Amino acid sequence: MKSIYFITGNKGKVAEAENKFSELNIEIIQKDVGYPEIQAINLEDVALYGAEHIQKRISHPFIIEDAGLFIDNLNGFPGVYSSYVYHTIGCRGILRLMENFKDGDRKAVFRSVFAFAISDDKPRLFIGECFGKISVAEKGDHGFGYDPIFIADGKSKTFAQIETSEKNKISHRGKSLDKLIDFFKNI
Amino acid sequence: MKSIYFITGNKGKVAEAENKFSELNIEIIQKDVGYPEIQAINLEDVALYGAEHIQKRISHPFIIEDAGLFIDNLNGFPGVYSSYVYHTIGCRGILRLMENFKDGDRKAVFRSVFAFAISDDKPRLFIGECFGKISVAEKGDHGFGYDPIFIADGKSKTFAQIETSEKNKISHRGKSLDKLIDFFKNI
Repeated sequence: MKSIYFITGNKGKVAEAENKFSELNIEIIQKDVGYPEIQAINLEDVALYGAEHIQKRISHPFIIEDAGLFIDNLNGFPGVYSSYVYHTIGCRGILRLMENFKDGDRKAVFRSVFAFAISDDKPRLFIGECFGKISVAEKGDHGFGYDPIFIADGKSKTFAQIETSEKNKISHRGKSLDKLIDFFKNI
Repeated sequence: MKSIYFITGNKGKVAEAENKFSELNIEIIQKDVGYPEIQAINLEDVALYGAEHIQKRISHPFIIEDAGLFIDNLNGFPGVYSSYVYHTIGCRGILRLMENFKDGDRKAVFRSVFAFAISDDKPRLFIGECFGKISVAEKGDHGFGYDPIFIADGKSKTFAQIETSEKNKISHRGKSLDKLIDFFKNI
Protein backbone atom coordinates (compact mmCIF):
# COMPACT_ATOMS: atom_id res chain seq x y z
CA MET A 1 0.00 0.00 0.00
CA LYS A 2 1.52 3.29 -1.13
CA SER A 3 -1.27 5.68 -0.23
CA ILE A 4 -4.43 5.84 1.81
CA TYR A 5 -7.36 8.24 1.72
CA PHE A 6 -8.33 10.08 4.90
CA ILE A 7 -12.00 10.96 4.42
CA THR A 8 -12.45 14.12 6.49
CA GLY A 9 -12.90 17.86 6.27
CA ASN A 10 -10.50 18.42 9.17
CA LYS A 11 -6.96 19.36 8.10
CA GLY A 12 -5.67 19.17 11.67
CA LYS A 13 -6.55 15.48 11.85
CA VAL A 14 -4.80 14.90 8.52
CA ALA A 15 -1.62 16.62 9.70
CA GLU A 16 -1.52 14.49 12.84
CA ALA A 17 -1.99 11.28 10.85
CA GLU A 18 0.58 12.32 8.20
CA ASN A 19 3.14 12.74 10.92
CA LYS A 20 2.71 9.15 12.10
CA PHE A 21 2.20 7.56 8.70
CA SER A 22 5.42 9.04 7.30
CA GLU A 23 7.43 6.38 9.16
CA LEU A 24 5.51 3.71 7.24
CA ASN A 25 6.15 5.29 3.83
CA ILE A 26 2.42 5.50 3.26
CA GLU A 27 1.11 8.75 1.82
CA ILE A 28 -2.07 10.22 3.35
CA ILE A 29 -4.39 11.85 0.81
CA GLN A 30 -7.20 13.95 2.24
CA LYS A 31 -10.60 13.46 0.60
CA ASP A 32 -13.36 15.74 1.81
CA VAL A 33 -16.22 13.84 0.18
CA GLY A 34 -18.54 13.52 3.18
CA TYR A 35 -20.45 10.49 4.41
CA PRO A 36 -23.55 9.94 6.53
CA GLU A 37 -23.07 9.88 10.29
CA ILE A 38 -25.88 8.03 12.02
CA GLN A 39 -27.42 8.86 15.36
CA ALA A 40 -26.14 6.19 17.73
CA ILE A 41 -25.03 5.76 21.32
CA ASN A 42 -21.42 4.86 20.59
CA LEU A 43 -18.73 6.04 18.21
CA GLU A 44 -18.04 2.53 16.93
CA ASP A 45 -21.50 2.31 15.34
CA VAL A 46 -21.10 5.74 13.74
CA ALA A 47 -17.68 4.86 12.30
CA LEU A 48 -18.77 1.44 11.09
CA TYR A 49 -21.86 2.77 9.34
CA GLY A 50 -19.86 5.57 7.71
CA ALA A 51 -17.10 3.24 6.56
CA GLU A 52 -19.51 0.73 5.03
CA HIS A 53 -21.25 3.56 3.21
CA ILE A 54 -17.97 4.84 1.76
CA GLN A 55 -16.94 1.31 0.70
CA LYS A 56 -19.81 1.31 -1.79
CA ARG A 57 -18.35 4.34 -3.55
CA ILE A 58 -14.57 4.14 -3.08
CA SER A 59 -12.36 1.13 -3.76
CA HIS A 60 -9.10 2.74 -2.61
CA PRO A 61 -8.01 1.98 1.01
CA PHE A 62 -9.27 4.69 3.36
CA ILE A 63 -9.58 5.75 6.98
CA ILE A 64 -12.14 7.86 8.83
CA GLU A 65 -12.10 9.08 12.40
CA ASP A 66 -14.77 10.11 14.87
CA ALA A 67 -14.31 11.39 18.41
CA GLY A 68 -16.39 12.49 21.36
CA LEU A 69 -16.36 13.60 24.98
CA PHE A 70 -18.35 11.40 27.37
CA ILE A 71 -19.14 12.87 30.80
CA ASP A 72 -19.96 10.24 33.44
CA ASN A 73 -22.46 12.23 35.49
CA LEU A 74 -24.28 13.56 32.42
CA ASN A 75 -25.05 10.01 31.24
CA GLY A 76 -22.35 10.19 28.59
CA PHE A 77 -23.49 13.58 27.20
CA PRO A 78 -22.37 15.10 24.79
CA GLY A 79 -21.02 11.76 23.49
CA VAL A 80 -21.37 11.06 19.78
CA TYR A 81 -23.00 14.49 19.34
CA SER A 82 -20.03 16.36 20.81
CA SER A 83 -19.48 18.40 17.68
CA TYR A 84 -23.11 19.52 17.44
CA VAL A 85 -23.26 20.32 21.17
CA TYR A 86 -20.01 22.28 20.92
CA HIS A 87 -21.44 24.40 18.12
CA THR A 88 -24.68 25.10 19.97
CA ILE A 89 -24.14 25.39 23.74
CA GLY A 90 -20.32 25.19 23.69
CA CYS A 91 -17.88 24.72 26.56
CA ARG A 92 -19.84 27.32 28.51
CA GLY A 93 -22.97 25.17 28.31
CA ILE A 94 -21.10 22.13 29.60
CA LEU A 95 -19.67 24.14 32.51
CA ARG A 96 -23.10 25.48 33.36
CA LEU A 97 -24.62 21.99 33.36
CA MET A 98 -21.92 20.94 35.88
CA GLU A 99 -21.91 24.08 38.02
CA ASN A 100 -22.63 22.31 41.29
CA PHE A 101 -20.66 19.15 40.55
CA LYS A 102 -17.83 18.47 43.00
CA ASP A 103 -14.37 17.51 41.84
CA GLY A 104 -15.00 13.77 42.19
CA ASP A 105 -18.20 14.05 40.13
CA ARG A 106 -16.55 15.65 37.08
CA LYS A 107 -15.09 12.50 35.51
CA ALA A 108 -15.08 12.32 31.71
CA VAL A 109 -13.42 10.39 28.93
CA PHE A 110 -12.41 11.51 25.46
CA ARG A 111 -12.85 8.70 22.91
CA SER A 112 -11.56 8.41 19.36
CA VAL A 113 -12.30 5.70 16.81
CA PHE A 114 -10.48 5.18 13.54
CA ALA A 115 -12.05 2.92 10.94
CA PHE A 116 -9.88 1.44 8.19
CA ALA A 117 -11.45 -0.23 5.18
CA ILE A 118 -10.32 -1.70 1.91
CA SER A 119 -12.49 -3.13 -0.88
CA ASP A 120 -15.23 -5.37 0.58
CA ASP A 121 -13.52 -6.42 3.80
CA LYS A 122 -15.27 -5.66 7.06
CA PRO A 123 -13.90 -2.31 8.31
CA ARG A 124 -11.49 -2.53 11.23
CA LEU A 125 -11.85 -0.24 14.22
CA PHE A 126 -9.09 1.22 16.41
CA ILE A 127 -10.19 2.82 19.67
CA GLY A 128 -8.30 5.28 21.85
CA GLU A 129 -9.38 6.69 25.19
CA CYS A 130 -8.12 9.43 27.46
CA PHE A 131 -9.61 9.54 30.96
CA GLY A 132 -9.79 12.76 32.92
CA LYS A 133 -12.18 15.36 34.30
CA ILE A 134 -14.00 18.54 33.35
CA SER A 135 -12.34 21.69 34.70
CA VAL A 136 -14.37 24.38 36.52
CA ALA A 137 -13.45 27.08 33.99
CA GLU A 138 -12.19 27.37 30.41
CA LYS A 139 -8.41 27.64 30.27
CA GLY A 140 -5.83 27.77 27.45
CA ASP A 141 -5.69 28.62 23.76
CA HIS A 142 -4.26 25.50 22.09
CA GLY A 143 -6.24 22.78 20.36
CA PHE A 144 -9.94 23.02 19.61
CA GLY A 145 -13.38 21.90 20.80
CA TYR A 146 -13.54 20.88 24.44
CA ASP A 147 -9.77 21.10 24.98
CA PRO A 148 -10.11 24.19 27.26
CA ILE A 149 -12.26 22.26 29.77
CA PHE A 150 -10.64 18.80 29.77
CA ILE A 151 -7.87 17.85 32.20
CA ALA A 152 -6.32 14.41 31.62
CA ASP A 153 -5.72 12.14 34.63
CA GLY A 154 -2.40 12.95 36.30
CA LYS A 155 -2.25 16.44 34.79
CA SER A 156 -3.10 19.81 36.30
CA LYS A 157 -3.53 21.69 33.01
CA THR A 158 -6.27 21.47 30.40
CA PHE A 159 -5.58 20.10 26.92
CA ALA A 160 -5.71 23.70 25.68
CA GLN A 161 -2.94 24.72 28.09
CA ILE A 162 -0.39 22.21 26.80
CA GLU A 163 1.41 22.08 23.45
CA THR A 164 -0.35 20.07 20.73
CA SER A 165 2.64 17.75 20.36
CA GLU A 166 2.50 16.96 24.07
CA LYS A 167 -1.26 16.51 23.98
CA ASN A 168 -1.00 14.08 21.05
CA LYS A 169 1.17 11.77 23.15
CA ILE A 170 -1.57 11.18 25.71
CA SER A 171 -4.73 12.05 23.83
CA HIS A 172 -7.50 9.68 22.73
CA ARG A 173 -6.70 10.39 19.06
CA GLY A 174 -2.98 9.86 19.62
CA LYS A 175 -3.76 6.44 21.08
CA SER A 176 -6.20 5.27 18.42
CA LEU A 177 -3.75 6.47 15.77
CA ASP A 178 -0.93 4.48 17.42
CA LYS A 179 -3.07 1.34 17.29
CA LEU A 180 -3.78 1.97 13.61
CA ILE A 181 -0.06 2.45 12.90
CA ASP A 182 0.77 -0.78 14.80
CA PHE A 183 -1.75 -2.62 12.65
CA PHE A 184 -0.09 -1.39 9.45
CA LYS A 185 3.35 -2.32 10.77
CA ASN A 186 2.21 -5.91 11.23
CA ILE A 187 0.47 -6.60 7.93
CA MET B 1 -54.67 2.43 -0.58
CA LYS B 2 -56.16 0.31 2.20
CA SER B 3 -53.31 0.29 4.66
CA ILE B 4 -50.09 2.11 5.41
CA TYR B 5 -47.11 1.14 7.55
CA PHE B 6 -46.01 3.51 10.32
CA ILE B 7 -42.34 2.69 10.88
CA THR B 8 -41.79 3.56 14.53
CA GLY B 9 -41.25 2.08 17.97
CA ASN B 10 -43.54 4.68 19.54
CA LYS B 11 -47.11 3.41 20.18
CA GLY B 12 -48.28 6.87 21.23
CA LYS B 13 -47.50 8.26 17.80
CA VAL B 14 -49.35 5.36 16.18
CA ALA B 15 -52.45 5.94 18.29
CA GLU B 16 -52.51 9.62 17.34
CA ALA B 17 -52.16 8.82 13.64
CA GLU B 18 -54.79 6.03 13.79
CA ASN B 19 -57.24 8.49 15.18
CA LYS B 20 -56.87 10.82 12.20
CA PHE B 21 -56.49 8.14 9.53
CA SER B 22 -59.71 6.40 10.55
CA GLU B 23 -61.73 9.08 8.73
CA LEU B 24 -59.93 8.12 5.51
CA ASN B 25 -60.64 4.39 5.88
CA ILE B 26 -56.90 3.71 5.79
CA GLU B 27 -55.57 1.24 8.31
CA ILE B 28 -52.33 2.11 10.12
CA ILE B 29 -50.04 -0.87 10.73
CA GLN B 30 -47.16 -0.29 13.11
CA LYS B 31 -43.81 -1.74 12.00
CA ASP B 32 -40.98 -1.41 14.47
CA VAL B 33 -38.21 -2.36 12.05
CA GLY B 34 -35.79 0.50 12.68
CA TYR B 35 -33.92 2.65 10.21
CA PRO B 36 -30.77 4.78 10.32
CA GLU B 37 -31.14 8.35 11.53
CA ILE B 38 -28.31 10.55 10.31
CA GLN B 39 -26.66 13.39 12.15
CA ALA B 40 -27.94 16.54 10.46
CA ILE B 41 -28.96 20.08 11.29
CA ASN B 42 -32.60 19.77 10.30
CA LEU B 43 -35.33 17.17 10.69
CA GLU B 44 -36.13 17.16 6.97
CA ASP B 45 -32.72 15.67 6.14
CA VAL B 46 -33.10 13.03 8.84
CA ALA B 47 -36.59 12.04 7.64
CA LEU B 48 -35.60 12.01 3.96
CA TYR B 49 -32.53 9.87 4.55
CA GLY B 50 -34.51 7.43 6.69
CA ALA B 51 -37.36 7.19 4.18
CA GLU B 52 -35.04 6.54 1.24
CA HIS B 53 -33.29 3.85 3.25
CA ILE B 54 -36.59 2.12 4.06
CA GLN B 55 -37.71 2.32 0.41
CA LYS B 56 -34.93 -0.07 -0.51
CA ARG B 57 -36.37 -2.72 1.78
CA ILE B 58 -40.13 -2.13 1.86
CA SER B 59 -42.42 -1.73 -1.13
CA HIS B 60 -45.62 -1.12 0.87
CA PRO B 61 -46.61 2.56 1.39
CA PHE B 62 -45.24 3.84 4.70
CA ILE B 63 -44.80 6.90 6.91
CA ILE B 64 -42.15 7.87 9.45
CA GLU B 65 -42.05 10.83 11.79
CA ASP B 66 -39.29 12.75 13.53
CA ALA B 67 -39.62 15.67 15.92
CA GLY B 68 -37.44 18.03 17.90
CA LEU B 69 -37.36 21.07 20.15
CA PHE B 70 -35.34 24.01 18.82
CA ILE B 71 -34.42 26.74 21.34
CA ASP B 72 -33.59 30.08 19.74
CA ASN B 73 -31.00 31.30 22.22
CA LEU B 74 -29.23 27.93 22.39
CA ASN B 75 -28.57 28.00 18.62
CA GLY B 76 -31.32 25.50 17.98
CA PHE B 77 -30.18 23.03 20.66
CA PRO B 78 -31.32 20.28 21.33
CA GLY B 79 -32.77 20.19 17.79
CA VAL B 80 -32.55 16.93 15.88
CA TYR B 81 -30.86 15.34 18.90
CA SER B 82 -33.76 16.15 21.24
CA SER B 83 -34.34 12.52 22.12
CA TYR B 84 -30.69 11.86 23.00
CA VAL B 85 -30.42 15.08 25.01
CA TYR B 86 -33.64 14.25 26.85
CA HIS B 87 -32.25 10.87 27.86
CA THR B 88 -28.95 12.32 29.06
CA ILE B 89 -29.37 15.78 30.63
CA GLY B 90 -33.20 15.86 30.53
CA CYS B 91 -35.57 18.79 31.11
CA ARG B 92 -33.50 19.70 34.16
CA GLY B 93 -30.42 20.16 31.99
CA ILE B 94 -32.30 22.45 29.61
CA LEU B 95 -33.61 24.54 32.52
CA ARG B 96 -30.12 24.82 33.98
CA LEU B 97 -28.69 25.98 30.64
CA MET B 98 -31.33 28.73 30.59
CA GLU B 99 -31.23 29.70 34.26
CA ASN B 100 -30.44 33.38 33.67
CA PHE B 101 -32.50 33.79 30.49
CA LYS B 102 -35.26 36.38 30.75
CA ASP B 103 -38.79 35.67 29.56
CA GLY B 104 -38.20 37.24 26.12
CA ASP B 105 -35.07 35.14 25.63
CA ARG B 106 -36.77 31.78 26.16
CA LYS B 107 -38.35 31.37 22.70
CA ALA B 108 -38.47 27.86 21.25
CA VAL B 109 -40.23 25.92 18.55
CA PHE B 110 -41.34 22.30 18.46
CA ARG B 111 -41.03 20.83 14.95
CA SER B 112 -42.41 17.61 13.51
CA VAL B 113 -41.79 16.13 10.09
CA PHE B 114 -43.74 13.24 8.54
CA ALA B 115 -42.28 11.52 5.51
CA PHE B 116 -44.55 9.48 3.26
CA ALA B 117 -43.12 7.17 0.61
CA ILE B 118 -44.37 4.60 -1.82
CA SER B 119 -42.31 2.41 -4.17
CA ASP B 120 -39.59 4.48 -5.87
CA ASP B 121 -41.22 7.90 -5.73
CA LYS B 122 -39.36 10.68 -3.98
CA PRO B 123 -40.62 10.76 -0.36
CA ARG B 124 -42.96 13.64 0.48
CA LEU B 125 -42.44 15.67 3.64
CA PHE B 126 -45.10 17.31 5.84
CA ILE B 127 -43.90 19.81 8.40
CA GLY B 128 -45.68 21.07 11.50
CA GLU B 129 -44.46 23.74 13.92
CA CYS B 130 -45.61 24.98 17.30
CA PHE B 131 -44.02 28.20 18.54
CA GLY B 132 -43.70 28.94 22.22
CA LYS B 133 -41.22 29.33 25.06
CA ILE B 134 -39.38 27.32 27.69
CA SER B 135 -40.93 27.57 31.15
CA VAL B 136 -38.81 28.34 34.23
CA ALA B 137 -39.74 25.06 35.96
CA GLU B 138 -41.09 21.62 35.08
CA LYS B 139 -44.86 21.47 35.39
CA GLY B 140 -47.51 18.83 34.64
CA ASP B 141 -47.75 15.06 34.19
CA HIS B 142 -49.29 14.58 30.73
CA GLY B 143 -47.41 13.84 27.54
CA PHE B 144 -43.74 12.98 27.40
CA GLY B 145 -40.28 14.38 26.65
CA TYR B 146 -40.04 18.15 26.91
CA ASP B 147 -43.79 18.66 27.41
CA PRO B 148 -43.32 19.76 31.09
CA ILE B 149 -41.14 22.74 30.06
CA PHE B 150 -42.83 23.93 26.83
CA ILE B 151 -45.55 26.59 26.82
CA ALA B 152 -47.18 27.23 23.44
CA ASP B 153 -47.73 30.84 22.35
CA GLY B 154 -50.99 32.21 23.74
CA LYS B 155 -51.11 29.60 26.53
CA SER B 156 -50.15 29.89 30.19
CA LYS B 157 -49.79 26.15 30.84
CA THR B 158 -47.12 23.71 29.69
CA PHE B 159 -47.94 20.90 27.24
CA ALA B 160 -47.78 18.53 30.21
CA GLN B 161 -50.47 20.50 32.06
CA ILE B 162 -53.10 20.19 29.33
CA GLU B 163 -54.99 17.11 28.12
CA THR B 164 -53.34 15.21 25.28
CA SER B 165 -56.39 15.70 23.04
CA GLU B 166 -56.17 19.46 23.56
CA LYS B 167 -52.42 19.44 22.99
CA ASN B 168 -52.81 17.51 19.73
CA LYS B 169 -54.97 20.32 18.32
CA ILE B 170 -52.16 22.86 18.55
CA SER B 171 -49.02 20.72 18.65
CA HIS B 172 -46.35 20.43 15.99
CA ARG B 173 -47.24 16.76 15.43
CA GLY B 174 -50.95 17.54 15.23
CA LYS B 175 -50.20 20.06 12.48
CA SER B 176 -47.85 17.89 10.41
CA LEU B 177 -50.35 15.04 10.71
CA ASP B 178 -53.16 17.32 9.48
CA LYS B 179 -51.09 18.21 6.42
CA LEU B 180 -50.48 14.52 5.75
CA ILE B 181 -54.21 13.77 6.05
CA ASP B 182 -55.06 16.65 3.69
CA PHE B 183 -52.63 15.21 1.16
CA PHE B 184 -54.37 11.82 1.30
CA LYS B 185 -57.78 13.44 0.95
CA ASN B 186 -56.69 15.06 -2.30
CA ILE B 187 -55.04 12.15 -4.11
